Amino acid sequence: MGKRPVIGLLGGGQLGRMLCEAAGPLGYEIAILDDEACPAKQIMASNRHVAGSFKDAAKVRELASQCDVLTVEIEHVDTQVLEEIATKGVRRASGKVERISVHPSWRTLRLVQDKFEQKEHFRQSGIPVATQMALTSGSSLLDALGQAHDKLAFPFVVKARKGSYDGRGNYKVRGPSDFEPAIEALAASSLLYAEAWVPFTKELAVMVLRTEDESGACTGLYSFPTVETVHQRDICKMVYMPPREVDAATCTAAQKLAQQVIGRLWGRGVFAVEMFLLQDGSLMVNEVAPRPHNSGHYTIEAVPYMSQYKAQLHAILDLVPPSLKLTPRVSQAIMLNILGGAQAASHDKLVELAETAYADDVDTFLHLYGKAPKPGRKLGHITFTTPSSHVELIKAVAPFVDEADLIRQ
Amino acid sequence: MGKRPVIGLLGGGQLGRMLCEAAGPLGYEIAILDDEACPAKQIMASNRHVAGSFKDAAKVRELASQCDVLTVEIEHVDTQVLEEIATKGVRRASGKVERISVHPSWRTLRLVQDKFEQKEHFRQSGIPVATQMALTSGSSLLDALGQAHDKLAFPFVVKARKGSYDGRGNYKVRGPSDFEPAIEALAASSLLYAEAWVPFTKELAVMVLRTEDESGACTGLYSFPTVETVHQRDICKMVYMPPREVDAATCTAAQKLAQQVIGRLWGRGVFAVEMFLLQDGSLMVNEVAPRPHNSGHYTIEAVPYMSQYKAQLHAILDLVPPSLKLTPRVSQAIMLNILGGAQAASHDKLVELAETAYADDVDTFLHLYGKAPKPGRKLGHITFTTPSSHVELIKAVAPFVDEADLIRQ
Repeated sequence: MGKRPVIGLLGGGQLGRMLCEAAGPLGYEIAILDDEACPAKQIMASNRHVAGSFKDAAKVRELASQCDVLTVEIEHVDTQVLEEIATKGVRRASGKVERISVHPSWRTLRLVQDKFEQKEHFRQSGIPVATQMALTSGSSLLDALGQAHDKLAFPFVVKARKGSYDGRGNYKVRGPSDFEPAIEALAASSLLYAEAWVPFTKELAVMVLRTEDESGACTGLYSFPTVETVHQRDICKMVYMPPREVDAATCTAAQKLAQQVIGRLWGRGVFAVEMFLLQDGSLMVNEVAPRPHNSGHYTIEAVPYMSQYKAQLHAILDLVPPSLKLTPRVSQAIMLNILGGAQAASHDKLVELAETAYADDVDTFLHLYGKAPKPGRKLGHITFTTPSSHVELIKAVAPFVDEADLIRQ
Repeated sequence: MGKRPVIGLLGGGQLGRMLCEAAGPLGYEIAILDDEACPAKQIMASNRHVAGSFKDAAKVRELASQCDVLTVEIEHVDTQVLEEIATKGVRRASGKVERISVHPSWRTLRLVQDKFEQKEHFRQSGIPVATQMALTSGSSLLDALGQAHDKLAFPFVVKARKGSYDGRGNYKVRGPSDFEPAIEALAASSLLYAEAWVPFTKELAVMVLRTEDESGACTGLYSFPTVETVHQRDICKMVYMPPREVDAATCTAAQKLAQQVIGRLWGRGVFAVEMFLLQDGSLMVNEVAPRPHNSGHYTIEAVPYMSQYKAQLHAILDLVPPSLKLTPRVSQAIMLNILGGAQAASHDKLVELAETAYADDVDTFLHLYGKAPKPGRKLGHITFTTPSSHVELIKAVAPFVDEADLIRQ
C-alpha cells in the first residue's frame, strides 16, 4: 500500500482526540506532542508520539522531524518555531533539512493569539467588531480604565489580549468601583484591552473550511451550517442547529460573514467564527478559533460525510473537492457539553442517561474524552439528532439539560 | 468519574479495530489479545493489552484477569478456557478468583466452530438448512464421497467442519472425477462433511442483536435491515441495502428467520445470519457468525445511532433499550470491500478515488484497517450512502466497482 501521510499534532486534548477518531478509519497516523496520558494518545498508537509541551520549541522540532504535515488543536503554541519549520525547515533523522507544511499558517496563529490585534485586523477589512482600545499596563492602568470609560462608556469588558479561553481573563466593568477589582482579577495578564459591552440577543457560530494552493492563495471557503451557542459562566453549554428563532436570511448572512472573516486569514483547515446577533438583526464578529471547535462537534453526526474533523484532515492534506457543499443529513441537532461538577462522579448520571437513551426519532450520541474530572472541565459531550422536522428536539433534550444543570449547582 | 468497564477482546483484526472505533467516543477501554501490531491495537492504547494468540489459554486467562467482560472478534478461539473463565472464574492480580461474563457464550462459539453441528442444531429447530452428511476421514473418505453422491447427488460441496472462513476449506464436487482433487484440497482438515449444492438466486444476510438476562434467558432479538451480499472467489465483495430486486415481504421474512436462528443460540451480542434466497422465493440458512460481520459494516453509517459495533458493546454491557428499533437513517447503502491485489499498491487508486469522491447526494466513507497488503486480504472497505430514494446509488458506485475489479485481475 502507498505510504499514508503522517500528521503531526500539537496538543492532544479532546479536539485532538476527535481528530484521531476521524483519522483512524481513514488510515492516517497522527503523531501527538502532549502529555503521555492525554485524551488523544489514548486512541492513537504511534511510535512517533512526543511527550512534552506544545510550547517547547525543541519538542515541536522533534515532532516535525517525523511528520509530513503539522497542525494544531490549540492556538496557544510557539509560532516562532512553526514559522521556522515552515520557512527554513526541520532536520530529518536522515540529516536532510526539509520544509514542512504547517496548517493553519503560523501567521494566523500569531495573529489570533492577540485578541486585540485579531479584531483590529478584521476591522481594517470592514468586518463589524466591537469598539475596543488597548490598555497600557502597570501603574497607569487605573488612568487607562478611566480613558476606556470615556471612549466606551459603562459597562465595558477588560480582557487579557493573550492566553485566555472559555471566558477566563475577562472582567466586566459596570462602573468606577469595578476598576480596582478588575485590575486585581487580571493581574496575571501583562497585556490588556478594553472592549465595549455588546448587548447581543444571541451568540451564533459558523465553522468555515478554508483551502489554499501551494502559493498560499485561498482556493475555497465552505461554511458549515450556522448554529446558536449558549454559554453559562463563560463556558459553552449547548449548541443548536438550526439556531432557535433565527430566520434563514440571518443564518445565510452569518455564513457569508464567517467566510469573509476566514478569507482574511492564512492556511488550510477549519476555523470557528463566533458572532453576536444584535437587537437590530445585524451581526458582529466576536472571535475566531483557527481549528476544530466546540461549536462544531455536532458536525460529527449532522454532516457525517465531512465532519469538522474529517474536514480538517482533508484540508491539511489538500483533498477537499472544489464543489463541496456542507449540507446536514439531519433536520436538527443539539449538542450538550458534559462538564465536571463539584464531586468527581457528579456527571455519572448524565452519562448513564445518554448511554441508555432511546427514542424512535431522536438519536443520542455520547462522546467521552478520557479525562480526569475537575469542576468545570469539559469531560465529554452529547449530540442529539433527529431525521424528522416534526420532532421537538428541544423538548426531548430537556431532561438531559436539567441533569447537566444539577451537576454545576 | 465512575469507573468505565474494561472490555477484553480476543482478536484485534479489522472487526476488533472497528469495535475500538465505536468504543473510543463511548469512553470504554478495550484490552486486546493479539499481535502487537494488529489493526485494533493501532487505535486503542491500553496497558492491559496482551501480546500473543487468542488460541493460547494462558494468554486468554492473562487478559481476562484484567477485564470486566470478555468478547471475541472471531469464533476460532479456545472455548475450554472461556468456559472455565465464565463458570469457575479467573484469578485477579489481587489473588481473588472471579467469574467473568463471556459474550457471546462459549456454548455458541463451540457450536458454530463445527459447521456441521451448527446446521444440525438449526435443523432440529425446524430451521431450513441444506441437506448434509458427515464424512468419515482417512482411507474410507473415497467411499464416503460415493455415499454423499447417493444422498446428495451432484454437484455437492465438501467442506471442512472447523477452522474455515471466507470460503476456504470448501470444494465443489461436480462428478466422480472431483473426488480425488477434493480429498487433496482438503487434506489439511481432519473433519469434513458434504452438503447439497443449493441453487440459490441470491445471498441475503441479517445482523441480529441478542440480549439476555443474568440467568441466560433471551430477553430480546433485534434485526438490522436485510442486505444482499455478493461474493467473488468466495470472499465478500459487496453488500447492498436494500437488496437488489427483492420484495419487502422477503426482506421481512429474512429478518424473522434470522431472529429465529439467533434465538437458538446463547449469549449477548450481534450475530450475522447468512442465508440463501431460492428460486421459489423461500429462504435457507447458510451459516452464522456470532460477532460483528462484514455484512454489517454498512451499519456504521446507515444505522449510526446503533451500528453493529456499538450494538455489540451495548449488548455485552447490558445497555440495550428494550424498545430498540434498528431503522436505517439513509435510504440506500452499498459497501465495497477493498481487497489486496497482486501488487502491494494495487488498491491505491481505489483508496484515492474514495478519498476524493464527492457528490451532492452520495456520501462516501472510506475505512482502512492498517494492514499490510496481501493478495485477497481485506484491507478496508468503502460505504456509500444516500439520503435520497431517487438517487441510483448502484450507478454512482459503478466506477468504484470497476476499479475494485481491476485490482484482482
